[in-house]
Amino acid sequence: MKSFDELQQVISSELEVINWNKEPRGLYEPIAYVLSLGGKRIRPVLTLMACNLFSDDLQPAVSSALGLEIFHNFTLLHDDIMDKADVRRGQPTVHKKWDENTAILSGDVMQIASYQYMTQTPADQLKLSLDLFSKTAAEICEGQQYDVEFEHRERVGADEYLEMIRLKTAVLLGASLKIGAWIGGAGEKDACLLYDFGINIGLAFQLKDDLLDVYGDASTFGKKIGGDILSNKKTYLLIHALELAQGSDASDLQNWLNVSESKSSEKIEAVTALYNRLGVKAICEEKMQFFYEKALSNLGEVSVSDNKMQELRNLAKKLMFRKE
Amino acid sequence: MKSFDELQQVISSELEVINWNKEPRGLYEPIAYVLSLGGKRIRPVLTLMACNLFSDDLQPAVSSALGLEIFHNFTLLHDDIMDKADVRRGQPTVHKKWDENTAILSGDVMQIASYQYMTQTPADQLKLSLDLFSKTAAEICEGQQYDVEFEHRERVGADEYLEMIRLKTAVLLGASLKIGAWIGGAGEKDACLLYDFGINIGLAFQLKDDLLDVYGDASTFGKKIGGDILSNKKTYLLIHALELAQGSDASDLQNWLNVSESKSSEKIEAVTALYNRLGVKAICEEKMQFFYEKALSNLGEVSVSDNKMQELRNLAKKLMFRKE
Repeated sequence: MKSFDELQQVISSELEVINWNKEPRGLYEPIAYVLSLGGKRIRPVLTLMACNLFSDDLQPAVSSALGLEIFHNFTLLHDDIMDKADVRRGQPTVHKKWDENTAILSGDVMQIASYQYMTQTPADQLKLSLDLFSKTAAEICEGQQYDVEFEHRERVGADEYLEMIRLKTAVLLGASLKIGAWIGGAGEKDACLLYDFGINIGLAFQLKDDLLDVYGDASTFGKKIGGDILSNKKTYLLIHALELAQGSDASDLQNWLNVSESKSSEKIEAVTALYNRLGVKAICEEKMQFFYEKALSNLGEVSVSDNKMQELRNLAKKLMFRKE
Repeated sequence: MKSFDELQQVISSELEVINWNKEPRGLYEPIAYVLSLGGKRIRPVLTLMACNLFSDDLQPAVSSALGLEIFHNFTLLHDDIMDKADVRRGQPTVHKKWDENTAILSGDVMQIASYQYMTQTPADQLKLSLDLFSKTAAEICEGQQYDVEFEHRERVGADEYLEMIRLKTAVLLGASLKIGAWIGGAGEKDACLLYDFGINIGLAFQLKDDLLDVYGDASTFGKKIGGDILSNKKTYLLIHALELAQGSDASDLQNWLNVSESKSSEKIEAVTALYNRLGVKAICEEKMQFFYEKALSNLGEVSVSDNKMQELRNLAKKLMFRKE
């Protein structure tokens, strides 16, 4: 079994040799730029790992793995326009470095490129993989739409939030695993179990993100602590805080949500204190643990020897106990 | 052989029964809206016509035809954002009626939907059709990129312009025909001839567009006469006028290009007079005729009885002698 690091290396090398040096430069340069910004390459690695559970030959899964990674980066590119984000992975976003029209159009062609790679899936799994890929791609757009809509809503239910992050984040992890499993020759039951593992680990992953934003260690966390608090992002923590806060806590929280951006460090401190008092950290951690355990139990049911599953189990653990 | 009107009816009925009434409404409503605005449905009709040349059974080509039409409308949606166009087919554009983020995201999911229909191409032609579709889709983005870049350039060569409209407009007509031909069971030579027919008729079609904008009849032309002149659009007419104008004609033309929007009727009148004096109308008409004849000669070589080709020949004629 290949390790995470080895597979990540396979993906990086494959991504590096794709030729984006095509005309018109203004269309293809931003794609090369976005893909050069790095990232953990989790999705394509999951595809190769899932394939590896059932086959020693990973080559047939490489194109699909690349398609999934290119698609993921396309969603970041277009999301950054919609979120008016200036920075991604420490570098200016495409619509900042170039302009918005460029970001729209380069994103469009990136989505097409992701389909070009997906269309190189071996013939036997082509239709199946493309159907799941398209379904997943549409779900990710649905998740993004809910995310945008939630920003303008007064209240969002915890279940609505979980459904939003399932669509926006988890389904692509599930699809990456399932497509890899199919290409490796998995039976339908195992492919579905790996999909479910992806969903559960994806949900846990996003809850971890919400936690890191508030409780992360500034020295290891890649972004500034408290960004979600400053932007009033309706995370799992804030949703529960809004639900649980009573009396003066409720009015305090509401006041902080209305406060201008100038008092940023006070706001982060005060909202974090409210979170602590209301116990929402524990609620979020418990839910994360719940999905993490479900994910591990999905893995336990896959009809593959236990030692072969070790890499996926390690990866799940790594994602749960990460500091960035 | 089915007529244009019959096939257009097939497409309209099929488009009408697609269910866009899905959640989140904010994502899917704009798609239903864009597709309800109408249009001539030329691309999907071409797919069905090309299929019909080789087979009486059009059903296997319907999904691909719909995919091509949905893709075409997706490009209009995103182009309208980039061009800051307020009106499309007499109605407000999506980014005007909703907002820009909605237009970006609904467009993205529309592109995915077009792939979902393309993926229903019969298995034997699936890979081939998808590869051509993706190649064409990327070329259309390239064409749009050149179109945007040309707006900011002082001079554009006539050949560069023809290459831009080949990418932006003609290749989708070619691909619509070729995919339909493949599904109908055409041999490779015939499929390629139909592709070339699409390219040539597409180029002629766009030159006709340039002519109609200036020399169309206001009572039958759908848009306002002179729109391209007012926006300084580098059409085939303007490109040649810039190349041919000497002395006072050259400075007059340059002055009109720099004039503010207030003097619109004078500008249209003056630039049209310059076009007439420089003879660029005839240059454009000759080029259009050249591509139209090439298109007809492509048709003549297809190994199908002459009477079967009549519908495609009628359509080509209709596109060339149209008044809107």
